[in-house]
Amino acid sequence: MGKATRVSMAVVRRLPRYHRYLGELLKNDVRRISSRELSERMGVTASQIRQDLNCFGGFGQQGYGYNVEELYSAITKILGLDKSYNSIIVGAGNLGQAIAGYTNFEKSGFTLKALFDKNPKLIGLRIRDIEILDVDILADFLNENKIDIGILCIPRSSAQQIADILTHNGVRAIWNFSVTDLNVPDNVIVENVHLSDSLYTISYRLNEDELFKTIEKDKQKAFNS
Amino acid sequence: MGKATRVSMAVVRRLPRYHRYLGELLKNDVRRISSRELSERMGVTASQIRQDLNCFGGFGQQGYGYNVEELYSAITKILGLDKSYNSIIVGAGNLGQAIAGYTNFEKSGFTLKALFDKNPKLIGLRIRDIEILDVDILADFLNENKIDIGILCIPRSSAQQIADILTHNGVRAIWNFSVTDLNVPDNVIVENVHLSDSLYTISYRLNEDELFKTIEKDKQKAFNS
Repeated sequence: MGKATRVSMAVVRRLPRYHRYLGELLKNDVRRISSRELSERMGVTASQIRQDLNCFGGFGQQGYGYNVEELYSAITKILGLDKSYNSIIVGAGNLGQAIAGYTNFEKSGFTLKALFDKNPKLIGLRIRDIEILDVDILADFLNENKIDIGILCIPRSSAQQIADILTHNGVRAIWNFSVTDLNVPDNVIVENVHLSDSLYTISYRLNEDELFKTIEKDKQKAFNS
Repeated sequence: MGKATRVSMAVVRRLPRYHRYLGELLKNDVRRISSRELSERMGVTASQIRQDLNCFGGFGQQGYGYNVEELYSAITKILGLDKSYNSIIVGAGNLGQAIAGYTNFEKSGFTLKALFDKNPKLIGLRIRDIEILDVDILADFLNENKIDIGILCIPRSSAQQIADILTHNGVRAIWNFSVTDLNVPDNVIVENVHLSDSLYTISYRLNEDELFKTIEKDKQKAFNS
């Protein structure tokens, strides 16, 4: 299952959103915000925000609301975004190249050190001046370079094998875009991005009204019989 | 804010995972599973699963557990995966091409009808036999073709403008990979994939032990002073 968190993942997943919203407020020169206003913008209740922040010692004052800059900087620290991290991407196909192209990640402290692939046509190419290396030298590279995060953009068939190489060679976290759940040691972090899960919430929502019409009808039938 | 759901999104987001796990059980010829076993595999409590399923009428029997095939097929219907949907991708860069390459989406009923871009070098190319068209004809295309889902893989600067074209021309749902929150009419569904939010949960978790050491120290200081 990988490494557990002290704070529930539901809370952890709201933090980047708080960070994003507060960053936008700062950009718009908003210095102070009431907990009600913040909660309305974010679409969560004020008490939810208060509870979430209390996990980390609590912020803000009654009758004053939040100091945007202080809260933004506190959440930056909570998210570990005041530190820097080295990453590599395994799988330099379209998805790997797309992720390598996100220059904003670098600005937040995530440095991409290399990409890896097994395709000879890709090996040696550069994405934003970062070289695509032969996956055969992955273990050696990890022994010579301290890498915190391995980003998996490979088909599910080889995902576990590559994950093993990563975790046996000091990588502490895997950002997994392969549609499979990985087995990793208990001290390793896995963050899955299952794009199909996200897409299926769309089909659910496109279909929800019709679904509930059917459920109501079935209930009515059961009631009448 | 876009279209609201009847059932909380926390529940909706667990459904694709249930679907994935049950699909794997079926593949491995598991026909029956106790609620405890299912919950252990999924890492959620048995009562959570029961509550989630109760939103849709409830399934399973006391002392028997779940019939895997029935539950899988029920969740397939709940997720609307027994229907078919037409989609287009706007933005045919690496990310757009990566998503166009996911052939599994087609198998689940999501048909990709076209990609759009403004880059003349990309227009006319084909990804899996699907043409990249000029974004200038997007509105016309939408009027001639019933498209359910628009997939946005463009920079944030043009995201709102393209979202407006989509929603004014009959698109009912937007899968948004642009790092910006879109304004859409109340009947339109927006599903955001904010990759940076996912990445920031990794830096949080890499940093959590150290964070709580600091929090404990600060508490101790406050207590001692």
